[in-house]
Amino acid sequence: MGKILRVELTRGRISEEPLTDEYAKNYIGGVGTASRILYDEVPPWVGALDPQNRLIFSTGPVTGSPALCAGRHFIVSKSPLSGYFGDSSAGGFWGAELKFAGYDMIIIHGKAQKPVYIWIHDGEVEIKDATSYWGMGARQADRAIRNDLGDKSVRVADIGQAGENLVRYAAIMSDEASRAAGRCGVGAVMGYKNVKAIAVRGHKKVPVADEEALEKNGKRLLETLKGDTQTNWFSKHGSSGYYAMMAQLGDTPTLNWTKGYFDGKNGITSPGGYDKISVGHATCYNCPIACRRLVTVKDEPYAFEPEVEGPEYETVGALGSNCGISNVKALAKANDLCNIYGLDTISAGGTLAFAMECYERGLISKEDTDGMELRFGNGLAVIRMLEKTAKREGFGNILAEGSRRASLIIGRGTEHYAMHVKGLEIAMHDPRAFQAMGLTYATAPVGGDHMEGETTFVEKPGKITYAPLKLNGLDRFSTERKAEAAFKVQNLWHAIGNAMGYCLLACATGTTAYPLKYNLMFYNAVTGQTMHFEEMMKIGERIYNLKRAFTIKHGATRGEDSLPERILMESHAEGGSKGSVCKLGEMIPEYYKLRGWDQNTGKPTREKLEELNLPNVATDLLGHKKSK
Amino acid sequence: MGKILRVELTRGRISEEPLTDEYAKNYIGGVGTASRILYDEVPPWVGALDPQNRLIFSTGPVTGSPALCAGRHFIVSKSPLSGYFGDSSAGGFWGAELKFAGYDMIIIHGKAQKPVYIWIHDGEVEIKDATSYWGMGARQADRAIRNDLGDKSVRVADIGQAGENLVRYAAIMSDEASRAAGRCGVGAVMGYKNVKAIAVRGHKKVPVADEEALEKNGKRLLETLKGDTQTNWFSKHGSSGYYAMMAQLGDTPTLNWTKGYFDGKNGITSPGGYDKISVGHATCYNCPIACRRLVTVKDEPYAFEPEVEGPEYETVGALGSNCGISNVKALAKANDLCNIYGLDTISAGGTLAFAMECYERGLISKEDTDGMELRFGNGLAVIRMLEKTAKREGFGNILAEGSRRASLIIGRGTEHYAMHVKGLEIAMHDPRAFQAMGLTYATAPVGGDHMEGETTFVEKPGKITYAPLKLNGLDRFSTERKAEAAFKVQNLWHAIGNAMGYCLLACATGTTAYPLKYNLMFYNAVTGQTMHFEEMMKIGERIYNLKRAFTIKHGATRGEDSLPERILMESHAEGGSKGSVCKLGEMIPEYYKLRGWDQNTGKPTREKLEELNLPNVATDLLGHKKSK
Repeated sequence: MGKILRVELTRGRISEEPLTDEYAKNYIGGVGTASRILYDEVPPWVGALDPQNRLIFSTGPVTGSPALCAGRHFIVSKSPLSGYFGDSSAGGFWGAELKFAGYDMIIIHGKAQKPVYIWIHDGEVEIKDATSYWGMGARQADRAIRNDLGDKSVRVADIGQAGENLVRYAAIMSDEASRAAGRCGVGAVMGYKNVKAIAVRGHKKVPVADEEALEKNGKRLLETLKGDTQTNWFSKHGSSGYYAMMAQLGDTPTLNWTKGYFDGKNGITSPGGYDKISVGHATCYNCPIACRRLVTVKDEPYAFEPEVEGPEYETVGALGSNCGISNVKALAKANDLCNIYGLDTISAGGTLAFAMECYERGLISKEDTDGMELRFGNGLAVIRMLEKTAKREGFGNILAEGSRRASLIIGRGTEHYAMHVKGLEIAMHDPRAFQAMGLTYATAPVGGDHMEGETTFVEKPGKITYAPLKLNGLDRFSTERKAEAAFKVQNLWHAIGNAMGYCLLACATGTTAYPLKYNLMFYNAVTGQTMHFEEMMKIGERIYNLKRAFTIKHGATRGEDSLPERILMESHAEGGSKGSVCKLGEMIPEYYKLRGWDQNTGKPTREKLEELNLPNVATDLLGHKKSK
Repeated sequence: MGKILRVELTRGRISEEPLTDEYAKNYIGGVGTASRILYDEVPPWVGALDPQNRLIFSTGPVTGSPALCAGRHFIVSKSPLSGYFGDSSAGGFWGAELKFAGYDMIIIHGKAQKPVYIWIHDGEVEIKDATSYWGMGARQADRAIRNDLGDKSVRVADIGQAGENLVRYAAIMSDEASRAAGRCGVGAVMGYKNVKAIAVRGHKKVPVADEEALEKNGKRLLETLKGDTQTNWFSKHGSSGYYAMMAQLGDTPTLNWTKGYFDGKNGITSPGGYDKISVGHATCYNCPIACRRLVTVKDEPYAFEPEVEGPEYETVGALGSNCGISNVKALAKANDLCNIYGLDTISAGGTLAFAMECYERGLISKEDTDGMELRFGNGLAVIRMLEKTAKREGFGNILAEGSRRASLIIGRGTEHYAMHVKGLEIAMHDPRAFQAMGLTYATAPVGGDHMEGETTFVEKPGKITYAPLKLNGLDRFSTERKAEAAFKVQNLWHAIGNAMGYCLLACATGTTAYPLKYNLMFYNAVTGQTMHFEEMMKIGERIYNLKRAFTIKHGATRGEDSLPERILMESHAEGGSKGSVCKLGEMIPEYYKLRGWDQNTGKPTREKLEELNLPNVATDLLGHKKSK
């Protein structure tokens, strides 16, 4: 759409600026362009919960176009969880609607004195009073705002009580709280700024340079997808169905990462476990796969509103196996509460599992937990603690700080059980089952997140669909070529998914028949460019290094490129990853070398930054060039 | 007293730990020891307004002993104004009383869920409810707490409304709001943590190793001081009386630093200006000089409670000449409001003067200022704006962010008029009148503060009393030997004043007859050590580098070692510093060399850090040592 919307909340000023070609050329869009803006506008002296922090909503060039599976939006900010670079993304329809309303991106700064929401409709922008929505859950507020605006087609991104109460892993929900931009605490930033919601509605069309090519290739891809077993499997079972497969590989964190698989009989971690509560499917913008599943639970104590969003893969792990919850209804209820309160299920589950292990080990007691028996598998305790966390009541006030800070508050050696990297609770793949995942978690600018480049798709047994990456034949337990795998997958994901705006599950995971070449084809058709694979990967590398530079500039050291000791030292006694530990130390030197990062400081070298056309970043990180 | 008190507010846990010999040996005490603790316990990912930030109240080894002028306490925290190292100090009686109560230091972390105060009495510690005091001014709360505790001898350090409302330059007041630890926003950290006050009372005695030596030398010094002209001058005129002298040198920032002196006739900036409101003197702990002056104003609109603390030197500059206020009553009222609300007068004045210049230049209008005519010299506007700032009402909500952030919120090129270094409003000596002051402001870990080592005392004309420094014969307008002057004075101040606990005005300014040797003599008598001058200076250097390392680690770059353009480029048209600019660029390379800091990055080199026995700091800042 060529336009950035800037909203300064302290004084209530709204302005527009062009989305320059410079941005598009060097960073594509999405997280890429937003990274550049965050890097330029948020220096280290600005804290995450500080009016000067930026909250950037961004879309990719394909978002909202007729390209398939191009419905994602991205949220970028300094993270209240890590203190470093933070990003999060979601599918659904909000991103596309933002573009129809006329903008590619919204940069929010300052802090409103009272709760507000931003209403963007066909190029018009208003900052409106949100006092009456404050205190509502994300779903309720979404409905109330759309109702008050008198247009059911409005799309809303909002926070629940968790964001309002500055829970450090609060999410920004959208589409009636069905989609979550969960990671890195972006919802707390929104809550701090007193922004309850951003409502968007528009009738503009995303301009497409070559409609014919887009249509022709789109049809061809649709045909391919129709007959594809993998795609159909995904349509049927959804991302959560995938969990049982990965459990066989010992990849699924269980009981706070003490095990690699979960034997919850007939629970949600089993292939058919989901079926008994599943009542239908849902889709994101322009996606033929429709991997989303709707669920219903009618019986107490886990009943909730009929036909709401069911738990996705990461949630099944984080709130399911990792907390020892096998009851599919308890898990679905926990997921629903996270959606309503606006909580990241990964960090919520990671923090709860941490507390559960502390409880089981006697490091905390009922005296600490407001009288609750916080043992693994206690579904009612999970439900109750999520509520207390979102409201910052009692022990929930400590859990609201995330596992790293909670362990520091509690003390007593509990730091050992906080499973995070750089403050971000680690996502649901175990590096003991996939070596390169450990490399990604340990070195990622945002901390322990799978969206930085999930290597399981190239490490797992069987044929992979990533032909241009030339990564066939990897052994998931070996460290061989894993630096290369992490390097390539991270760059790829940052170009295709996080910058262009495609759904990574649909098109960059190798699990479907949506081959890589279509992403570029669609991108070129939409933008009128003729970008090639190597160029695209270079841009991915640039974005990744810029994010890394932000994190380094904001204080991260070489020593923080690590994993919890448990993953490095304790192997599983059974299951598909039995006997393995993550050999991070072996991989890092090779990885740094490939990345052009200094072995002793972990900083990108001047040569690498100059090669990537980031000379000012080099000065920031390394000082002025030494004169002869 | 050998004891550190640790208060974790989130869970309400209180513990004690020993003040180790290691700390005493390497850092003496005061800011020194607190810097080490802050460096170790607050990593860059912790924001200033973050439960994990520490608020450290510290005393020096001589604080509360019979050594003369040894009544200071120090407050150290990550600063909400700069985002870097923050410290602040105050005289009075609170620090001595803390020691009588049994502690050298208090480390506060976490965040209480409701307002509390900490009550420390003879080794007993309680966290008590402070709900009823929340919303009170600092003076009122101090009185109410002492009244409720039923002991008028209790000493209280507390915050006013500014700290409660997280004004970024909120102070921590003490002794019925008569003394201010103003700089770096430590009051906002206290407010964020929901701590209204720390009340102390005790009957312990500070142990003295050699009472005889202390008494003998104390008597000798007292005799010397009695007959000393400079000391008597200070007793009579106080620090504010000194202002008129410095104005003659063109050293006194006026109208937001556009002039170096102020011709407010008969106002407070003139030698006798103070007399008409002065009604008496006050003293700090064990000080024979008693430079504090009590004032009374009975007539509206500037009336206030009789016999309260009058404005000190920095306040006369910041809220007086720099805001164009010559009316002594308006200034005294503004000072009284800052004490009640708990606002740093330097940053409050600096931020107001910034806004006034913006108003005069038409960059902001009545529309921005809630209808107020915010011109230089408008005393009523100053009074009103201080109130609005403390309460974060209207335009006060923007001023509450400090000049740097306010300029970024307002935009329109107003950044040029924000007179700060690293976010901290610059104190009231003009580097155009004293070159080395520019060096200190530009490179100081905390930003533009005079307490980092005020070089005016060695740069100003006439004989100086700093014999061991070997700095006689400096020319204040020349850059010659100014790197050396800044280097030595900073180290000296960090050892004697900020670590040992002496009043810098009394004993390290060269303005009195309290010669340097007495500081060491008293220190050795109290602690039983035999420290020599060189050793003391080395510790000062260690402390200074550790503070610097914190600031660097938290994101400061070489480029931030600078001054506002105005000081570098615009010379005064008249007055005692006419025609001069600060030649910072000439001095920095020499200064970095003396300090052992890298010319391109401004970081302390590995060699320097190892020489100072700070090897782990070297690893933090520079990565692991390269292997051969």
